Amino acid sequence: MARINKNYDRLAAGYLFPEIARRTNLYLEKNPGTEVLRLGIGDTTEPIVSSVLDGLHHGVDQLGSVDTYSGYGPSEGLLSLRQALSDLHAESGLSIEPSEFFVSDGAKSDSANIQGIFSEDCIVAVQDPAYPVYVDSNVIAGRAGNSTGEGYEGLVYMPCTAENDFFPDLPSEKVDLIYLCSPNNPTGAVATKEQLKSFVDYANEHKAVIFFDSAYASFITDPNLPRSIFEIEGADSCSIEFNSFSKTAGFTGVRLAWTIVPKACRTEDSEPGKLHSLWTRRQNTFFNGASNVVQAGGIAALSPEGRRQTDEQVSFYLENARIINDGLKSMGITTYGGGNAPYVWLKSPGGLTSWELFDKLLNECKVVGTPGSGFGPAGEGFFRLSAFGHRDNVVRAVDSIKENLVI
Amino acid sequence: MARINKNYDRLAAGYLFPEIARRTNLYLEKNPGTEVLRLGIGDTTEPIVSSVLDGLHHGVDQLGSVDTYSGYGPSEGLLSLRQALSDLHAESGLSIEPSEFFVSDGAKSDSANIQGIFSEDCIVAVQDPAYPVYVDSNVIAGRAGNSTGEGYEGLVYMPCTAENDFFPDLPSEKVDLIYLCSPNNPTGAVATKEQLKSFVDYANEHKAVIFFDSAYASFITDPNLPRSIFEIEGADSCSIEFNSFSKTAGFTGVRLAWTIVPKACRTEDSEPGKLHSLWTRRQNTFFNGASNVVQAGGIAALSPEGRRQTDEQVSFYLENARIINDGLKSMGITTYGGGNAPYVWLKSPGGLTSWELFDKLLNECKVVGTPGSGFGPAGEGFFRLSAFGHRDNVVRAVDSIKENLVI
Repeated sequence: MARINKNYDRLAAGYLFPEIARRTNLYLEKNPGTEVLRLGIGDTTEPIVSSVLDGLHHGVDQLGSVDTYSGYGPSEGLLSLRQALSDLHAESGLSIEPSEFFVSDGAKSDSANIQGIFSEDCIVAVQDPAYPVYVDSNVIAGRAGNSTGEGYEGLVYMPCTAENDFFPDLPSEKVDLIYLCSPNNPTGAVATKEQLKSFVDYANEHKAVIFFDSAYASFITDPNLPRSIFEIEGADSCSIEFNSFSKTAGFTGVRLAWTIVPKACRTEDSEPGKLHSLWTRRQNTFFNGASNVVQAGGIAALSPEGRRQTDEQVSFYLENARIINDGLKSMGITTYGGGNAPYVWLKSPGGLTSWELFDKLLNECKVVGTPGSGFGPAGEGFFRLSAFGHRDNVVRAVDSIKENLVI
Repeated sequence: MARINKNYDRLAAGYLFPEIARRTNLYLEKNPGTEVLRLGIGDTTEPIVSSVLDGLHHGVDQLGSVDTYSGYGPSEGLLSLRQALSDLHAESGLSIEPSEFFVSDGAKSDSANIQGIFSEDCIVAVQDPAYPVYVDSNVIAGRAGNSTGEGYEGLVYMPCTAENDFFPDLPSEKVDLIYLCSPNNPTGAVATKEQLKSFVDYANEHKAVIFFDSAYASFITDPNLPRSIFEIEGADSCSIEFNSFSKTAGFTGVRLAWTIVPKACRTEDSEPGKLHSLWTRRQNTFFNGASNVVQAGGIAALSPEGRRQTDEQVSFYLENARIINDGLKSMGITTYGGGNAPYVWLKSPGGLTSWELFDKLLNECKVVGTPGSGFGPAGEGFFRLSAFGHRDNVVRAVDSIKENLVI
């Protein structure tokens, strides 16, 4: 008599983005022919740059010839790509071996799956608001109790508010696994070196592990802000980092990412090297490597010309963020983020809840954004606008908000 | 104080294929310049057929234009591909909705991850021998005890022997989750309709769920043998099926597969539809869809010309299997499988253990195969040879075995 994993029933509601899609589709059904301007999902919109396209085509071509055909690659990724990633980090003075890079199909997958190599009774701390996957994956794994409407029992929420510049204070209780995201999704805030150092010191003192999601690191323009947690002294013994080609190379649907598990990383009950070997085993058992075609695109993205072209694309999206920021500010709306991140985080005007603002923006302005409350209790009353969009759409969306939003 | 998932430490040894690679590399280090003939891993070797290559290139091209660029797709796969899969099955008289197909990056991933939507206390039954991922994923999830050297405590092993034509008898105790693979990896045996019906009836009677791995279904040439468990009456209320483009389209490194979760499928504690919605939620949380480039290749593989070309490739590999089978039989070695499967399963001559035969084949014949014992206790004394290989290599490997194996 098979039985289900009941933890799934604890999940509070539909995943945020399907719910946004549902409401948007309902609106479109009721208002056929209306054009909706989407600044909701953090999804790239611009064509892939030519050097990366060339790399992908090359990857396909290689499979058409007997001399260059390849089947299964290593689950951890092609050595040439892991080497290129190691070289990239060496430019910033980071010494990370190719074997410490694990190539995968997505930072989402890895950040959801990473908890599986840890004990079920670990106490999990998340920034609040946070990317929902961190919370949901732990709820499913049984590390959380019921949802109270103010989050889940058993999880430690670390509020990120205007008062603490959207970077959390250290948890007051002992926690074991800590999710940090910088540049932050959804708030757009970027952690300083000092802020990260406080968490690295905490993690080393308490033998906790930090999961550092730096998927948006390529949007950091301020040279004083860290792009990797491994720029912080002591991080390699307590941190695992996720990054992705999704945003770096404008690549979201192509699926390629990497995770760094330093061999120095340890737990309370394991020596350095054990987490590295557990993640290796996890990837060998539950995964079979990212597509060889896609990895060829990733290698091209890391070439000098690939980096020049993808950096240009990142600048394009950052300019979108500036346009959104300036437009909202000109209306007297308080905004955060955007300067070193593709997300603008705004305080709902007039005391609206996040979903109230969602419905107003959709109905009055025909703009789709993302309710802050979907990212956690402390996101209530906030709203995320994504800078991923065609320039024309972004400009029209901002104009429409300025013209039509009744506040 | 972070702690690890201790279930990983129960895993008996290194994953089978890395161990094979280790011994092979050691041999090559000691015998530099020697050419080794690999009939080990079930990995395709022939260039991808032209229509699929065209589909992949088309997928890349679409990402280069603003009008056809796409970012994240649905985690469950592109509707056009799910529709094409539904149409394919309709040709065999199967009525499976597009929404019951879940496109993913691999049958390995899905067959490893599927257990996660079920309760931790479900009793798991596996064919013995079996693809190691079924066992390992459940060990990691905590559904097994220690390894005794004769398998894991807590798992139910269903021996597949020459006596039962390598298809198991029904378990004598009650089990909840049942893994079946046909055409079987590693034995090459294909279940008949009657054999499958006995398990479907068992599962419906006991509200168990069958995980049916049909990744090698395209190798079935006998029209009387079922290619899908859904050809069996009553299967849709108790079965989940995994299939893959890896072998069907000669595609292993490209990463594309599908899983069928019928809406009719239920458990003891859930109504029909619940498993479908749990797997949807699982894929939405832990996965972000297969690569859009790769899915374009999958659509091409299902086109009339794509099917003609890939069927031809499957026939090529089946001819390899025939050559292996005939060669071994001519030496008096007892073999199984091969006719409707890309694997030949042979009884170790002279009472050798599986790894003893591995070492003999490597050292005496320079042929790499796969020890049967790596697939489970009942695989001891057997050996798997894979029909994936260039024709020339397969012929040379068989000749070398005939010439050099001392038995």
